[in-house]
Amino acid sequence: MIITVSRKAHFNSAHRLFRPDWDFQKNELIFGKCNNPNFHGHNYELIVSVTGEVNPETGYVIDMKILAEIIKIHIEDYLDHKNLNLDVEEFKDLIPTAEHIAFVIYNRIKPQISSKLNLEITLYETPRNFVTYKGL
Amino acid sequence: MIITVSRKAHFNSAHRLFRPDWDFQKNELIFGKCNNPNFHGHNYELIVSVTGEVNPETGYVIDMKILAEIIKIHIEDYLDHKNLNLDVEEFKDLIPTAEHIAFVIYNRIKPQISSKLNLEITLYETPRNFVTYKGL
Amino acid sequence: MIITVSRKAHFNSAHRLFRPDWDFQKNELIFGKCNNPNFHGHNYELIVSVTGEVNPETGYVIDMKILAEIIKIHIEDYLDHKNLNLDVEEFKDLIPTAEHIAFVIYNRIKPQISSKLNLEITLYETPRNFVTYKGL
Amino acid sequence: MIITVSRKAHFNSAHRLFRPDWDFQKNELIFGKCNNPNFHGHNYELIVSVTGEVNPETGYVIDMKILAEIIKIHIEDYLDHKNLNLDVEEFKDLIPTAEHIAFVIYNRIKPQISSKLNLEITLYETPRNFVTYKGL
Amino acid sequence: MIITVSRKAHFNSAHRLFRPDWDFQKNELIFGKCNNPNFHGHNYELIVSVTGEVNPETGYVIDMKILAEIIKIHIEDYLDHKNLNLDVEEFKDLIPTAEHIAFVIYNRIKPQISSKLNLEITLYETPRNFVTYKGL
Amino acid sequence: MIITVSRKAHFNSAHRLFRPDWDFQKNELIFGKCNNPNFHGHNYELIVSVTGEVNPETGYVIDMKILAEIIKIHIEDYLDHKNLNLDVEEFKDLIPTAEHIAFVIYNRIKPQISSKLNLEITLYETPRNFVTYKGL
Repeated sequence: MIITVSRKAHFNSAHRLFRPDWDFQKNELIFGKCNNPNFHGHNYELIVSVTGEVNPETGYVIDMKILAEIIKIHIEDYLDHKNLNLDVEEFKDLIPTAEHIAFVIYNRIKPQISSKLNLEITLYETPRNFVTYKGL
Repeated sequence: MIITVSRKAHFNSAHRLFRPDWDFQKNELIFGKCNNPNFHGHNYELIVSVTGEVNPETGYVIDMKILAEIIKIHIEDYLDHKNLNLDVEEFKDLIPTAEHIAFVIYNRIKPQISSKLNLEITLYETPRNFVTYKGL
Repeated sequence: MIITVSRKAHFNSAHRLFRPDWDFQKNELIFGKCNNPNFHGHNYELIVSVTGEVNPETGYVIDMKILAEIIKIHIEDYLDHKNLNLDVEEFKDLIPTAEHIAFVIYNRIKPQISSKLNLEITLYETPRNFVTYKGL
Repeated sequence: MIITVSRKAHFNSAHRLFRPDWDFQKNELIFGKCNNPNFHGHNYELIVSVTGEVNPETGYVIDMKILAEIIKIHIEDYLDHKNLNLDVEEFKDLIPTAEHIAFVIYNRIKPQISSKLNLEITLYETPRNFVTYKGL
Repeated sequence: MIITVSRKAHFNSAHRLFRPDWDFQKNELIFGKCNNPNFHGHNYELIVSVTGEVNPETGYVIDMKILAEIIKIHIEDYLDHKNLNLDVEEFKDLIPTAEHIAFVIYNRIKPQISSKLNLEITLYETPRNFVTYKGL
Repeated sequence: MIITVSRKAHFNSAHRLFRPDWDFQKNELIFGKCNNPNFHGHNYELIVSVTGEVNPETGYVIDMKILAEIIKIHIEDYLDHKNLNLDVEEFKDLIPTAEHIAFVIYNRIKPQISSKLNLEITLYETPRNFVTYKGL
């Protein structure tokens, strides 16, 4: 029995979209108001989905209490109330678009779960914009 | 034209997670507060998704009124305001985790729809925890 | 400057609506399927609203971190994953309708906050049914 | 890095489900109250999902500002506050079921985005009924 | 113990905003695209709130099953899948703005509940626009 | 006929909670992780509620198109994708707590609507924390 289990979480961060190798005008053209040098921010809503065989003994794919703890330690404590550009190692040389944030979250969670499990990350930047990354 | 149509429904039930062949301590360790012998409960939110060819005469994959009726009779009337462990046949020997409840719902709906249609069950145990089962 | 600040929380419980001084038939007539002797359950969503003067030094009516902690200790830890009828002192002689649960929550939170603040409790028993109590 | 980015939008329309080549009785039998000759209506909530390679220079699969503009011009301006049966070319000979509306939206957006990108349309006819179309 | 209990419901209708005593141009100026002569429509989400003394015997302000039945008979069956302008008596001479629909709903429910209870109607015309009427 | 009409809107901003006249330690004690000197951010969801007599000619308390335009010009264009501390005049000497942001929004909208109308601002800082201000 293959099942996907999903857990919601959230964190609030500031960010800015820009490339230091582009001038301000080109950054404005591509990133618009997301290029505000003083930053803006979001309540990121996160869905972590794990797919695998149900353990016949427990009826669990993965214990949700353990998954929630992994998300708390590796994502919430790491990104919540942070400035993604200034406070988070992975974004020193990576623009913190929703796409890249989902990619970073995927790579932080993947080593924490069994290699037999598939992982999918859905990240809402706003209630109207979201991205999904499955590690391909 | 292949389309997926989805219908939301809901039911409220009590349940307890434990194995009678484990002692209380082991049940506590694995199932934590879900092992409360006096039960706890949830508002389960259900999404039933059916995928197939659109009927060119009606523009429907399946008549939503019929799908809603199937869900009412075979799921809502069967599980709503019930104690899953004590009142529901399928959980006499199956721990009512969200994974297993989705599995039971799948197996109750599948025989009611055309064999040409694929079925997917999404079950929210809470607004923050949910599972998906496609019958594989 | 008078402002209301609100904080959402949640807990999952089992309950049963019935009066031991009524026979089964009368309980069925009044409480319907909520009278299931094996209990059923809900994900209760709670909104705690506190109204008062904004502290000009902090810009807070009440520190949300403190309010969240009060809710965690006095409501979530006390009611989550419990059987309201069997596990919770206040419902030994009080039917755990949504109205009465809101009343109990109000009375548990009120002594924890300044007497200058007004308190309002909104409790969703399901996404479709909810109650509000202001202590009058 | 393959990612799916999704954008929500919405429009409000009137419609009626019926076939002019069927008599009123047969239309009532198949379409029920959706056959009201005076029309009824919905707030359609739309999710447009685009899947493709992340552009390493911008960190975008597609610029959300551009996607939002495509949706505004080709879907919202075209369908919002319209009677789908009477005002919209595509439904002159096509019953405006949710399935068919998703199909029409897909075909209007597809030519506006790069052919390297996959497109998926999710359309909520009500908060409880929705359909998904991927162009197969 | 004074408590407010609320129940959500919904119906889907078509409508048009215009005054027959104004010419098309004035209707366009005031009502904009809501003046489409072919109608448009909405999923109306309704919250019916009833305030009163909790009955000490049942723990209820009003039995939610009875309130749900009143809403079903007097509102949902009456307005769902209807054209408000053409099919509903009250709007023969009253423009079906959200304000007026809430007023009509209030007046249809008020006689069905005890005169000791206060009634409040909240009506979402879209997820972004809503009105509240308390009968004053 | 007195009715309240409400309109939802949203904006995304960065902010930091701290007092320059307090040292870092006291700011940490009171504002916790909201004191991050590099800022963090939120998707603010805003509900603007206006109460008054329904105009018998139009059936409107206030034309929602006009209210939406006021919110766009005076709030969304002013606060969206901004750093509240650095980019917004009102917060030069006012800590941008949710309470104070609601107060600033109230004072920016009030002069734009008829003095006969009452105004109420509800501001969600996160889906779990929100404040309400009525101008008292």
